[in-house]
Amino acid sequence: MRETAHTRTDGRLIVGAAAVARKAGEPLVMEEVVVAPPSSHEVRIKIICTSLCYSDITFWKMKDPPGYFPRILGHEAYGVVESVGENVADLTEGDTVIPIFLPDCGECTDCRSKKSNLCTKLPFKVSPWTHRDETSRFTDLNGDTVYHFLYVSSFSEYTVVDIAHLTKVDPAIPPNRACLLSCGVSTGVGAAWRTANVEAGSSVAIFGLGAIGLAVAEGARLCGATRIIGVDVNPDKFEIGKKFGVTDFVNSKECGNKTVSQVIIEMTDGGADYCFECVGLSSLVREAYDSCRKGWGKTVVLGVDKPGSQLNFSSFEVLHHGKTLSGSLFGGLKPKSDVPILLKRYMDKELRLDEFVTHEVRFEDINKAFDLLLGGKSLRCVIWMDNCLKFL
Amino acid sequence: MRETAHTRTDGRLIVGAAAVARKAGEPLVMEEVVVAPPSSHEVRIKIICTSLCYSDITFWKMKDPPGYFPRILGHEAYGVVESVGENVADLTEGDTVIPIFLPDCGECTDCRSKKSNLCTKLPFKVSPWTHRDETSRFTDLNGDTVYHFLYVSSFSEYTVVDIAHLTKVDPAIPPNRACLLSCGVSTGVGAAWRTANVEAGSSVAIFGLGAIGLAVAEGARLCGATRIIGVDVNPDKFEIGKKFGVTDFVNSKECGNKTVSQVIIEMTDGGADYCFECVGLSSLVREAYDSCRKGWGKTVVLGVDKPGSQLNFSSFEVLHHGKTLSGSLFGGLKPKSDVPILLKRYMDKELRLDEFVTHEVRFEDINKAFDLLLGGKSLRCVIWMDNCLKFL
Ligand SMILES: [Zn+2]
Ligand SMILES: [Zn+2]
Ligand SMILES: [Zn+2]
Ligand SMILES: [Zn+2]
Repeated sequence: MRETAHTRTDGRLIVGAAAVARKAGEPLVMEEVVVAPPSSHEVRIKIICTSLCYSDITFWKMKDPPGYFPRILGHEAYGVVESVGENVADLTEGDTVIPIFLPDCGECTDCRSKKSNLCTKLPFKVSPWTHRDETSRFTDLNGDTVYHFLYVSSFSEYTVVDIAHLTKVDPAIPPNRACLLSCGVSTGVGAAWRTANVEAGSSVAIFGLGAIGLAVAEGARLCGATRIIGVDVNPDKFEIGKKFGVTDFVNSKECGNKTVSQVIIEMTDGGADYCFECVGLSSLVREAYDSCRKGWGKTVVLGVDKPGSQLNFSSFEVLHHGKTLSGSLFGGLKPKSDVPILLKRYMDKELRLDEFVTHEVRFEDINKAFDLLLGGKSLRCVIWMDNCLKFL
Repeated sequence: MRETAHTRTDGRLIVGAAAVARKAGEPLVMEEVVVAPPSSHEVRIKIICTSLCYSDITFWKMKDPPGYFPRILGHEAYGVVESVGENVADLTEGDTVIPIFLPDCGECTDCRSKKSNLCTKLPFKVSPWTHRDETSRFTDLNGDTVYHFLYVSSFSEYTVVDIAHLTKVDPAIPPNRACLLSCGVSTGVGAAWRTANVEAGSSVAIFGLGAIGLAVAEGARLCGATRIIGVDVNPDKFEIGKKFGVTDFVNSKECGNKTVSQVIIEMTDGGADYCFECVGLSSLVREAYDSCRKGWGKTVVLGVDKPGSQLNFSSFEVLHHGKTLSGSLFGGLKPKSDVPILLKRYMDKELRLDEFVTHEVRFEDINKAFDLLLGGKSLRCVIWMDNCLKFL
């Protein structure tokens, strides 16, 4: 280990190890990349650990834009501030942070409002250019640009992140728990807590029991939901679901001549109070909408379907069923104010996070994390970074 | 006038005047009809006045089901209880009531919940059979059945209404104001108050400035909205709108090369907090959804489009815009508990109702009320009943 705590690296290029996605769908390549110092409103971070989210896989597989190569993927992470650029007031070297893909500038109408988590000053977009000047902070050893991903790029020992995308966290929180709140778990828990605002005593149906669906269950449990119905095609998910408060299971392949919504309507005597679609299929959004209770049912869309996919509702049903349809990014959470609340609830043993971490690997084994998630074997695999710091 | 206050009519047939819709789109025919005594859970009402709502016209024009003939239309009204059937606990002869198309049984889960106004015990449906036994209380002088309409049929001196469709009102309230709360005005005011729950200081856009749209404006004003944008193709509506708190106008025919939503987004620096579609066009629902603010905008569907018409949303926008879509019947109001609150607010001079009544006619001139509404000349025309009570 060549690093020492007091070696000043700020203002200088750093060469660090990174797992670079060079071609769509091919194993990441461990190589050294050059990481520029942070520009204005930016912070350079030493990643401590990162976890693999399904969105990393989605973009890794994409041959065409918004798939770009070479690219450093990864967006769930925990790190330590290595150095800060100009116009950085709230963070300093040594602060522990989690990067979050959704911006929170703290200044615009939306960021100042309690009602919105969609920053209008630095609007979230799926772009390879994730810094204000639309350039990259990464170059490979040939001098070629390496693209960023979702404003984070955590499959790298060092990365540069805009301050709008950094949430300071209590250093007492274990890194491999805090990193989960960067994306998937926050999205699910937030959808129940902030987007749907699940009432105590209510019934919830969750379509898709991947990590996000299970996080919805955990959020619903935290809100006091008494009935949490998990819907999935894979019966193995049902045992896992129990750890997260799922009380009932519907195997959507085994509903006989009934639709899933008919089954849920019977189970709940009229429909679930809240339905969450976590897979990303318009047909399942339809099923979720049909499964929620006339009169007050709320359906929340969390899954990302293919571009252009449409949701169809009849004008009659929107009027006559009194249901609500909404969707949110990052579960409607405000990155800088809501995430610390959830982390505190974890430390207070109210929010369960431990159960999401099913695997942990060394950085050099990052491709195993891909295999595990692709094979449906892991919920979250935490990837611990090695220390390979060098100075140019 | 052959009626006296103490003549007991209960349990007997009554012959009274009615304006019968005999053929689709043809003038109503003033004739005598026989009105049966109330069955179990029913009340026979002497109508004092009734007002014409656009839904009367919609069904009057319909050649095919759910258009049925002969039929007694009319569903906004004020009346006095003439007699009660069995199993009627809360109403007695002489009580003043307004009939409401939406049921409120007071017993089912929905009626007992504050969150729903969609009774599950006696669910609202568009049917010619509006009594629990699915028979009619009206026959013409040839002995043929005359159909009911929307559980009310108020274009008749006497009608029989299920207790689930009757709200008792303070007799101090003028009949020609109370009757407005039977349908249209309640729907609009309720949509702002109960369905959208408009916040003080917020911005509202209303698509269509008919009576319902103007009632939305009045409801939004009551909730403290500071900016109320009316959208209509008819510039005359703009002057009328000012009486109901409309602050800004968009003539949707004069937006040049911009869409209405672009104009509203510019006017409100990002979009209106709440949008209401009051016309019944799926394309306008689309425009309303686009006009509401990313991050927290709510769109409420109030207008009834043609059967089968579809609303299309991309899965991407539902997720990335953080908007909510909902719809409601009767503005989400609970007929028996919310309507008396609104009537009290009228008596307390908070809610404006007087301005909705643009015309008043005698019962025999009811076809003039149709002409006025069809010609876009009236908001609400109140029809005062004559007294022609007879006993068989
Ligand atoms: Zn912002
Ligand atoms: Zn993610
Ligand atoms: Zn009921
Ligand atoms: Zn009406």
